[in-house]
Amino acid sequence: MSWTRREFTKLGALSLAASVAPPLSAQPAERKIGYAIIGLGRIAAIFMPGTRATTNSKVTALVSGHRPKALRIAADYDVPESSIYNYENFDSIISNKAVDAVYVALPNSMHAEYTIRAAKAGKHVLCEKPMATSVAECESMIAACKSAGVKLMIAYRCQYEPTNLKAVSLIRSGAIGQVQAIESGFGFNIKPGEWRLDKKMSGGGPLVDVGIYALNASRYLTGEEPESFHAFTSVIDHDGRFKQVEENVSWTTKFPSGIVAACNTTYGGQMTGFFKVHGSKGWIDVNPAFNYDGLHLRAQYPGTKLDLPNTSRNPYQFQAEAQHFSNCILHNLEPKTPGEEGLRDMRCISEIYRAAGASA
Amino acid sequence: MSWTRREFTKLGALSLAASVAPPLSAQPAERKIGYAIIGLGRIAAIFMPGTRATTNSKVTALVSGHRPKALRIAADYDVPESSIYNYENFDSIISNKAVDAVYVALPNSMHAEYTIRAAKAGKHVLCEKPMATSVAECESMIAACKSAGVKLMIAYRCQYEPTNLKAVSLIRSGAIGQVQAIESGFGFNIKPGEWRLDKKMSGGGPLVDVGIYALNASRYLTGEEPESFHAFTSVIDHDGRFKQVEENVSWTTKFPSGIVAACNTTYGGQMTGFFKVHGSKGWIDVNPAFNYDGLHLRAQYPGTKLDLPNTSRNPYQFQAEAQHFSNCILHNLEPKTPGEEGLRDMRCISEIYRAAGASA
Repeated sequence: MSWTRREFTKLGALSLAASVAPPLSAQPAERKIGYAIIGLGRIAAIFMPGTRATTNSKVTALVSGHRPKALRIAADYDVPESSIYNYENFDSIISNKAVDAVYVALPNSMHAEYTIRAAKAGKHVLCEKPMATSVAECESMIAACKSAGVKLMIAYRCQYEPTNLKAVSLIRSGAIGQVQAIESGFGFNIKPGEWRLDKKMSGGGPLVDVGIYALNASRYLTGEEPESFHAFTSVIDHDGRFKQVEENVSWTTKFPSGIVAACNTTYGGQMTGFFKVHGSKGWIDVNPAFNYDGLHLRAQYPGTKLDLPNTSRNPYQFQAEAQHFSNCILHNLEPKTPGEEGLRDMRCISEIYRAAGASA
Repeated sequence: MSWTRREFTKLGALSLAASVAPPLSAQPAERKIGYAIIGLGRIAAIFMPGTRATTNSKVTALVSGHRPKALRIAADYDVPESSIYNYENFDSIISNKAVDAVYVALPNSMHAEYTIRAAKAGKHVLCEKPMATSVAECESMIAACKSAGVKLMIAYRCQYEPTNLKAVSLIRSGAIGQVQAIESGFGFNIKPGEWRLDKKMSGGGPLVDVGIYALNASRYLTGEEPESFHAFTSVIDHDGRFKQVEENVSWTTKFPSGIVAACNTTYGGQMTGFFKVHGSKGWIDVNPAFNYDGLHLRAQYPGTKLDLPNTSRNPYQFQAEAQHFSNCILHNLEPKTPGEEGLRDMRCISEIYRAAGASA
């Protein structure tokens, strides 16, 4: 059997619908989960249009230190002025009935604080990756959400995205046989002055920011937890950008089954996110794998050659993750990527830095 | 500037000619270097037709334990019966004036012995990769050839191949800026019973056999010698194939400049040889990179997007390496990939096995 482009587009739509849409019988009565968006930067600017494409999510509040910007966005999303918060009065969100959940889109160092404050205000939390800047922070976020009885999901958009899900399902179906080895990488050449280069705000360099996609992929592709890591970090460009964080990280992982993964990440080079999976009977090559759209899967295994461009357009991945989390809230389900998933990556990141002899 | 497919084909032909052809003025009088082919297996069966496409090389003797096979090939290449040797009478080749050089295409464990015996017989040596099964063997081969005053070249065909050379020249020209990170891999799912699975004959698993392409590429692409390695080996398939050698190796390398490389090799999975190079201004992706033909280079850097399939057909890489070595013999030049190049890879292989905690 082989997939045509058309069949795949259909499949993409179907699998997206199946993974994120509520049961048909529940649709008529389904209310929309209201989100407070914390941090109005680049990623929030994609998430918000994403919610518009869902059937069960909407933006109902904004949290920002920049009121004019918040007012502009509020007008666009019909958010009342009374639902615009700043970082000082944020905790009063507890009394805002229109807010069921928050979307934490702040610099990494603020994830823990705002997740915990949101939980204390009784709001469910969808938090961007990386979950936080340390294992201890991740653990306290999980504990706070548990104790407040709210749900916590980490926004691993690729785990809700049909091309990545297709790769996972091909592997699980046995199509490419026993997986032996994986390569993956993701990086870019960072501009000076970004908050990501400030270790206090970011918690680390490209590894925590984009390398985490390769790390997370190696885990969801194998379905295993890494047994151990070896790693190098390096700085090549002594141009002032890398005084606090590394420029490159190269690591190799061994999984309990014996599967190995070799990965790179960089803040100094052009590296479209990709992964290659090598099985005993065939292979899967996804490139781009982690972009917001334009993903492309190629695979070959007995009797089949796949060439599947994903024609969905940004922000479909954000739509999918919002739809999923809102559905979990509406139907009291556990998110596919809960806080524990973010914690597992943070533990791996810690191990990689430790292996490289750098501090996490 | 951007290359069309046609321009590239022309370039391929030109650069091939430039790198391997003798000066025009010398052409009329150029004689053909006579090769004794030692070991009549799969790789010799490609090298021999390769020599036919050169202007300066020919097969003039055969060394084999299988006389009927040798007689068939001798008829095909006009080799007189008196120039067919076996492994016992091989040393008498010293008196065969039609033999200038040998091509060593034996199992790895026999490379050192036949290189040294050939050198003692006064013949130049073109030896297949991996050069040998240990650093000590490589050193003794270099010493033997030096002492006999004969040339020694390791048959790193990719270093004479236009697509790989194009990648190197793009990097050296600065087109993609400062190289930061490289991924590379090469492997296949090996059949039971191959001599490559017998450690005494092979000296190691996929690392010495095909992983060496990724290792060698990381060295010629960067133009640097690895500073250190981290590595894992693993065996997943306990089906009797991997009692002596590893099934998978995953390693990461750091070069003195800070460039990092993450590489895999396998005897258990389908892994078309490839490399990706990430620079500050652009990238190069060659896939396939190490096959006998069908190589394909894609690259992107300011103002340029390259998509360059190499339309040359096997055995053009063997033609190129034979033409180069014969030219070195005819004009007393040092081969581009001398014994020292094989020794450097062998030292790296040793380091990778040591890093993985396995014996080399």
